[in-house]
Amino acid sequence: MTAKAPLPISPLAVPFPEIQSVGGVELATARAGFYAQERDDVLVMRFAPGTVCAGVFTRHAVGSAPVDWCRRQLVRSKGMARALVVNAGCANSFTSKAGDRAAAKVAGAAAKLVRIKPREVMLASTGVIGVLLDDGKITKGLPGAVTGLSATAWPAAARAITTTDTFPKGATADAVIDGFPVRLAGIAKGSGMVAPDMATVLAFVTTDATIAPRALQELLDLAVQKTFNAVTVDGDRSTNDTLLVFATGQSGAPRIKRASDRRLSDFREKLDALLLDLALQLVRDGEGASKFVKITITGAKSPASARKIARTVAESPLVKTAFAGEDANWGRIVMAVGRADEPVRRERVRVTFGSLTAAKDGAVARDYSEAAMSAYMKNAELDVGVDVGVGRASATMWTCDLTKQYVAINGDYRS
Amino acid sequence: MTAKAPLPISPLAVPFPEIQSVGGVELATARAGFYAQERDDVLVMRFAPGTVCAGVFTRHAVGSAPVDWCRRQLVRSKGMARALVVNAGCANSFTSKAGDRAAAKVAGAAAKLVRIKPREVMLASTGVIGVLLDDGKITKGLPGAVTGLSATAWPAAARAITTTDTFPKGATADAVIDGFPVRLAGIAKGSGMVAPDMATVLAFVTTDATIAPRALQELLDLAVQKTFNAVTVDGDRSTNDTLLVFATGQSGAPRIKRASDRRLSDFREKLDALLLDLALQLVRDGEGASKFVKITITGAKSPASARKIARTVAESPLVKTAFAGEDANWGRIVMAVGRADEPVRRERVRVTFGSLTAAKDGAVARDYSEAAMSAYMKNAELDVGVDVGVGRASATMWTCDLTKQYVAINGDYRS
Repeated sequence: MTAKAPLPISPLAVPFPEIQSVGGVELATARAGFYAQERDDVLVMRFAPGTVCAGVFTRHAVGSAPVDWCRRQLVRSKGMARALVVNAGCANSFTSKAGDRAAAKVAGAAAKLVRIKPREVMLASTGVIGVLLDDGKITKGLPGAVTGLSATAWPAAARAITTTDTFPKGATADAVIDGFPVRLAGIAKGSGMVAPDMATVLAFVTTDATIAPRALQELLDLAVQKTFNAVTVDGDRSTNDTLLVFATGQSGAPRIKRASDRRLSDFREKLDALLLDLALQLVRDGEGASKFVKITITGAKSPASARKIARTVAESPLVKTAFAGEDANWGRIVMAVGRADEPVRRERVRVTFGSLTAAKDGAVARDYSEAAMSAYMKNAELDVGVDVGVGRASATMWTCDLTKQYVAINGDYRS
Repeated sequence: MTAKAPLPISPLAVPFPEIQSVGGVELATARAGFYAQERDDVLVMRFAPGTVCAGVFTRHAVGSAPVDWCRRQLVRSKGMARALVVNAGCANSFTSKAGDRAAAKVAGAAAKLVRIKPREVMLASTGVIGVLLDDGKITKGLPGAVTGLSATAWPAAARAITTTDTFPKGATADAVIDGFPVRLAGIAKGSGMVAPDMATVLAFVTTDATIAPRALQELLDLAVQKTFNAVTVDGDRSTNDTLLVFATGQSGAPRIKRASDRRLSDFREKLDALLLDLALQLVRDGEGASKFVKITITGAKSPASARKIARTVAESPLVKTAFAGEDANWGRIVMAVGRADEPVRRERVRVTFGSLTAAKDGAVARDYSEAAMSAYMKNAELDVGVDVGVGRASATMWTCDLTKQYVAINGDYRS
């Protein structure tokens, strides 16, 4: 892999937040050399004894060695973890048994340095598919990284895991559990669910709350639905997508055993907001994106139906190119809604752009103004609503536009 | 709608064939004025008494007035039809009850002129969504068109139904039924399942064979699966897609009542080939297309599974941009295969580009040559194969690449 001119920072970028230390969490970065340019491409995190870990992984049928590793070890360790090693530049996916062995070597080396069991080490990789991970490149840098672990290296950590990201992504929040303050902090990478050469959504969230493994997994599964699973850049899904949450239990707040425990209500809200914040940053860094678009479907038969319609609209290349062209082409929205194969009452369909009504009762709105619509489309952030007139369910999905820049980035990458 | 500079002819275009007259079929074109530029935008076809008609229509939930009309009338007329009126420039979709009335007026006027029943008139429209059809524009030109009907106006007919097509599309074939020669001829329009402003796949096929309505419909339903349903440009589906077959019975060949009749074997083969020819011309005219790509999935669990995987690969924006960039990025193929949510045996997956093997047994091929692969990608026609190592079913899908030109065409259209 050779150095390329860096992409310009997304016009939709947001600044990296100031992240305070989270009790029981230390971070360090290192350079394995997967990139020709000078940059750290390895992240090591160490967690306090007793840290609970929950994970959500790609549903991709091919998957990758690090995803297989995490899935297996989380079962063996019963949801406990003490370290995380992430690398950018090589996905170690589609690399057969040799890839599994390389992943195990990285985990083994990290475990030895931190004096824990290999199964307490989580792994994540992102980068080229089909290239075997050179584990030696990572393990040679581990001793230095472990020596340099600190509670404050969040910005460097966020940068070390990036691939084609044009800005580092992080989020933090304070919550209260039964009167005790707890903290959450997380980082993510991904510029869309894009390109196997660089691909993959990774997100790592930490908290000093004390939550039992099963409850943490349940919280995460619920939160993912309306956050990471509600954003799309190009509909492609990576072999390596990984979202891990670590709860160190260092806050002093009482241990919570059940996800439904009322004392978790504030924490749950803050966790959801933090995951949504990270997920929306991915959309803001969608390759070539110039518009940030929120699609809300209402009046659907069921939440699943609403989600499917929202996703169909959000992934339609015709809808996305119209956004890029600042074209208030509501007909394409109707077209995308109709091809979702979900119940729709044609004579009741309503389409809105911001506060403007484009179509109502299955035909163009009486007060439709092309001038007003065109002016609205100039905004960098768009809000499109469709009521399909069948029931009461709704869903929201976030996406970006499809630009010539997207094609340029993805057509020219490997050549 | 205003005149735009015409798009350059697709580099993948094929010449319009020489079509001999088909017994019982007459054609004429007219100018309704849906376009500012000088061009015919209406097609009228008249068929001999006794003509049988079968149709396949969009499964789009919103649909359109002409599609609703055809569906209803084909039931009422028990699969008989005597005329067809098509217009380009206005889809008459999402136009509520007023749209239905406009469609009925066009059919009524045509029926009066040809002295048949309105239900014997088939209709098709393509163009802007959400704009009510101005039926007067069409009906004023009908008398002149009917007077000018001829057996040879195929090239003009193919041009009159185009929207963003960069070349007219036609195909013809001769077949034998029980020793009697019969002829087939058809035209199509569509440059992908694209843009509601111009959108829509229309195809009209005629033959002088004598086939009972139910048998003709069955033949068509079978043929569509591996032809029109096996091509994709951008995955979007139009509100107006219409494929009609008319069998006039003027050849003198015996009347065939059942689709399974062995005497139809040659006819069936020729009909399939003709429909595939038309469908592939749509791909060759995919908006902005520079590559014509055949995707073949083998080793799948079932034909439906193979089709779903093939479609997922063919519609992946990452795969399609890689083709545009002439990037032999087989990792993206693997990625797309995996996200189809169909059974795949990772350790057996094989990916081929033409006669070159990119990946085998779940990892990069031992004799993989980047130079050879890159050279192959320069071809205008690409042949990609994936064996998913599970079963014996296969499917083929044709698509084109996703270029900056596609984004330009679709982003700038209406503005």
